[in-house]
Amino acid sequence: MTTRYGYLGPRGTFCEMALQAWLSSPTHLRGVASAGGLEQVPCSSVAQALSALRAGDLDAAMVPIENSVEGGVSATLDALSVGESLVILGEVLVPVTFVIGVRPGVALADVRAVGTHSHAWAQVRGWMDAQLPEAAYVPTLSTAAAAAGLDGSATEVASYQAFVGAPVAASNHGLEVLATDIGDNPGAVTRFVLVARSGRTAPPTGADKTSVVLYQRDDHPGGLLELLEQFATRGVNISRLESRPTGAAMGSYCFTIDFEGHVADERVGETLMGLQRVCAQVRFLGSYPRADGVPTPAPVGTAEADFLRAQRWLAELRRGDF
Amino acid sequence: MTTRYGYLGPRGTFCEMALQAWLSSPTHLRGVASAGGLEQVPCSSVAQALSALRAGDLDAAMVPIENSVEGGVSATLDALSVGESLVILGEVLVPVTFVIGVRPGVALADVRAVGTHSHAWAQVRGWMDAQLPEAAYVPTLSTAAAAAGLDGSATEVASYQAFVGAPVAASNHGLEVLATDIGDNPGAVTRFVLVARSGRTAPPTGADKTSVVLYQRDDHPGGLLELLEQFATRGVNISRLESRPTGAAMGSYCFTIDFEGHVADERVGETLMGLQRVCAQVRFLGSYPRADGVPTPAPVGTAEADFLRAQRWLAELRRGDF
Amino acid sequence: MTTRYGYLGPRGTFCEMALQAWLSSPTHLRGVASAGGLEQVPCSSVAQALSALRAGDLDAAMVPIENSVEGGVSATLDALSVGESLVILGEVLVPVTFVIGVRPGVALADVRAVGTHSHAWAQVRGWMDAQLPEAAYVPTLSTAAAAAGLDGSATEVASYQAFVGAPVAASNHGLEVLATDIGDNPGAVTRFVLVARSGRTAPPTGADKTSVVLYQRDDHPGGLLELLEQFATRGVNISRLESRPTGAAMGSYCFTIDFEGHVADERVGETLMGLQRVCAQVRFLGSYPRADGVPTPAPVGTAEADFLRAQRWLAELRRGDF
Amino acid sequence: MTTRYGYLGPRGTFCEMALQAWLSSPTHLRGVASAGGLEQVPCSSVAQALSALRAGDLDAAMVPIENSVEGGVSATLDALSVGESLVILGEVLVPVTFVIGVRPGVALADVRAVGTHSHAWAQVRGWMDAQLPEAAYVPTLSTAAAAAGLDGSATEVASYQAFVGAPVAASNHGLEVLATDIGDNPGAVTRFVLVARSGRTAPPTGADKTSVVLYQRDDHPGGLLELLEQFATRGVNISRLESRPTGAAMGSYCFTIDFEGHVADERVGETLMGLQRVCAQVRFLGSYPRADGVPTPAPVGTAEADFLRAQRWLAELRRGDF
Repeated sequence: MTTRYGYLGPRGTFCEMALQAWLSSPTHLRGVASAGGLEQVPCSSVAQALSALRAGDLDAAMVPIENSVEGGVSATLDALSVGESLVILGEVLVPVTFVIGVRPGVALADVRAVGTHSHAWAQVRGWMDAQLPEAAYVPTLSTAAAAAGLDGSATEVASYQAFVGAPVAASNHGLEVLATDIGDNPGAVTRFVLVARSGRTAPPTGADKTSVVLYQRDDHPGGLLELLEQFATRGVNISRLESRPTGAAMGSYCFTIDFEGHVADERVGETLMGLQRVCAQVRFLGSYPRADGVPTPAPVGTAEADFLRAQRWLAELRRGDF
Repeated sequence: MTTRYGYLGPRGTFCEMALQAWLSSPTHLRGVASAGGLEQVPCSSVAQALSALRAGDLDAAMVPIENSVEGGVSATLDALSVGESLVILGEVLVPVTFVIGVRPGVALADVRAVGTHSHAWAQVRGWMDAQLPEAAYVPTLSTAAAAAGLDGSATEVASYQAFVGAPVAASNHGLEVLATDIGDNPGAVTRFVLVARSGRTAPPTGADKTSVVLYQRDDHPGGLLELLEQFATRGVNISRLESRPTGAAMGSYCFTIDFEGHVADERVGETLMGLQRVCAQVRFLGSYPRADGVPTPAPVGTAEADFLRAQRWLAELRRGDF
Repeated sequence: MTTRYGYLGPRGTFCEMALQAWLSSPTHLRGVASAGGLEQVPCSSVAQALSALRAGDLDAAMVPIENSVEGGVSATLDALSVGESLVILGEVLVPVTFVIGVRPGVALADVRAVGTHSHAWAQVRGWMDAQLPEAAYVPTLSTAAAAAGLDGSATEVASYQAFVGAPVAASNHGLEVLATDIGDNPGAVTRFVLVARSGRTAPPTGADKTSVVLYQRDDHPGGLLELLEQFATRGVNISRLESRPTGAAMGSYCFTIDFEGHVADERVGETLMGLQRVCAQVRFLGSYPRADGVPTPAPVGTAEADFLRAQRWLAELRRGDF
Repeated sequence: MTTRYGYLGPRGTFCEMALQAWLSSPTHLRGVASAGGLEQVPCSSVAQALSALRAGDLDAAMVPIENSVEGGVSATLDALSVGESLVILGEVLVPVTFVIGVRPGVALADVRAVGTHSHAWAQVRGWMDAQLPEAAYVPTLSTAAAAAGLDGSATEVASYQAFVGAPVAASNHGLEVLATDIGDNPGAVTRFVLVARSGRTAPPTGADKTSVVLYQRDDHPGGLLELLEQFATRGVNISRLESRPTGAAMGSYCFTIDFEGHVADERVGETLMGLQRVCAQVRFLGSYPRADGVPTPAPVGTAEADFLRAQRWLAELRRGDF
């Protein structure tokens, strides 16, 4: 049977690059892949991709979750936080390198308007202010869609003369690159995650990450401090924390948190139980291998062996053997 | 001399509504207003508004900072976090009520594409899926720009037949409203802040809020916990916390935090000093009256009088009078 | 077989009163009692009593552990902290009511010296300063030993004319009570514990207490704070905390701690495991019913049912059922 | 005018050794010393010494406050905690070396009873169990009083044949030393403090210590944790913490705490103010030079310069200069 992978299309997006990186890595075999071949399905939005996944029309979807410049991707964080449970099976880091591309023959001086996605536009403001200070901005659905609008085969005439996006989008559409690496942050990286329907978890590798969404029981002072102490007392390190509005009212937040370790680890298990006790709700989004493969050393007293020894000791106490 | 107020234009945006609410309130007189009249200046983006403010072309700018559904507004948070210091003088809460509007005579069945800003589009997905499941989405620079595109006087023919935005945008452009209150979250609210060049702070009212950006000295485990303890030991309540990437590397964050109280309050002063000592940098964004005017009771031992009594007691100890 | 109970003798001490209260309560049947009768054995010191217990010459020993005026009883705390493990099976609270007693016919005016234990002397200073300001103090091994010295059958002539101690000590030795309730703190109470060789624990009653001795891994700043957070994150309330020197060097301490709950409780078990992980050593001194029988309500999220629900939830996550 | 120094007598106690060490150090000139000579006054108890000090009959008193084996000295801690304020001006560490002494000609085999203070008896149990297992214990008012009882000039015949105490006590009374260094803990040290009437504080030296007694507002769970966080947020290290019963009821405690730094230091001042705000009462017992003279490095962000810089920064914020 064919395995269907969704991504944010059209072809030529950074998201497609993430999916291809995933599929070319041996890791993906531990995921949803089956023997029957695979299909890559472009989706119009994160919401649409995850809906298709929940409906069974996809087996997995690659979606952006965080950008080193822009921060968390709201649409993804929110789509994972509500509705039927999904699980993150892995992550891919993609360097974000922007080019400005035009139809062959067009010069920089001819560019009066630039089309791209609003996130990309935000990341090339420095270059634009210096090189094209007069250019208007035309928002598009994606960076690749901006490139497609300049393609000779496009059905409509674009209202812009240049696009900003990935190098592959320029080559896909036969466009000429006027400048490369035009992003304000040369080291910018976007983190993508491969999401599937829940019911499985990636096996522990020793260098894992776990994602959750925490809903506080009430919004009292010091509430976040209490949540963080559940991590600290078990020596679990948080790698990302975002507050997100729950939509209920201004000032009502949930927290999406990534932390080091795997649900199968004792210190992670005990942390999760502690959170579940003190939160109104804990939404588990999965444990999966870190993209960088770097194992995190546990602080003194919080290694797996320390937890197992403490469990044996407690068992001895309870049967009077002390 | 004329006082110039910028806002996210064009006319008809929620941001313009926020500015008008501010100007019609007696509070604004404590701000930047002078005797010589005022001017409202539409700006094309948050970044452009704040650049104009820094350059002296504006005296103040009204910008969105947080939405009860979407969360923090990255462009504003980031523009306040870097560059020349600015100060928040006040906040305005604007209920976000979306309408769908068309040229007179157009029916819902005629709508094949809808133009609006991407944030607005994200908030009307439920209504769209139910009523216009086949409609394409056309991103625009603002909700008001989407309405302007349908105006009879527009220079270009819009590629969409309906817009989504504020009621005032429909009436500004002579459009017909097909449905009101089409947002997925009926109680959605956007919080706007009035920003000025630093050098003044709104005077304390007893119901105030203070905003800061905190940069950690290093990214060690428990680092955020330490920052939050600086608040907790002085009984200061945090009302909003957002982690934002610093752009330096994936996993490097700063924190934008709103908390209760005014820089003139002793408990706030001591908290700020504590943060300044343990952080690499604390960027002060101002103290200003809360939009809801509700004073926060200080926890036992953290009222202004408690701090003043403790100061007198310490002075006595230091001169041997105990 | 006879069950042998030690106590701090001679007869007439508050400690003997504690043992008799224990033996007259139905609770003691859950302890070390066997069918073959019992014997009460006076001991000369806490150290001697616990040595005899460890050597098998006693089945249990009643010893003072804490006084509401003087604080922890060092000899007991230290004897429990080192050497072969012992276990506390229960506690008894004895009100401490001092009388001053003399040989029949002796008047207050005749008293030039007063014999008693140094702890008792410390607790009647107010009365002595007012009534017998000129009286010398003669230290004795126990309050009851002071009374015995005045007994007509004593082999030596005492160097004092009055004793201070329990009413029962006066009547045991045919002494006359000159004044009652002469303690400086009318509500003074001493807490005694019944100690046995380890290998059993009192069963949970719902109103229990657990005692431990904690040895820190090193003496770094904030070390005690970390230990206390292990309790706080599981909602476990500490009822007594004493730092005790380890004897290794000035400034090197261990902590003897009593807290609410039983080792069989989930929240206590997880707390103990957490302490065992972060401490150099945790010495478990037993779980036993509170003398006052008052159950402690667990804070929200830390009841037994909360822990069991969290365990089930984690088990579901781990098998992919979420 | 003569300066009168009290100490725990009679002559030959470890406390007298502490006072002589103090008087022979240049430090004492910063204390209560005046030009008119000095007198050393033996006192019968800590309580009597501090009463005489409060009454003006002494100018200062040297009293034991902590022993590396036995822990805090209750009588001293309690006498400092209630009544008219006193202040600690300095501390002295005295190694505790016990000898066993007899009248010339008496052999170890002749010893059937040993006289000493109960604290000393507790510290030589190991040697006694090994060398004199049959010897009875006779409590005395002090170790030196035990030696005095064996002196040829004593008015009464002692009921013991040997004393345990300081080497100087043996030589003072012409006694023969049978064995030296008989303590169970070879490195045992007692810490003495020089106490005066309040109204002055030792000047800061850069290697100082401060002592306080803290009374909690109520005895809620986590109360001690909150107190310790007042220290932690200012980087102040605690060197001793003792809970002491307040005498009000079983389970009602105050805390006597020594911590690093001087009341004149900014981080100590802010910590003291924080404690004063959250406690029912803070009793300040003085700031004084550490006996070991070792300065404590402040954690990052808590040095004096860090506090002063934070104060300047806050002042700038408050006048709008940011």
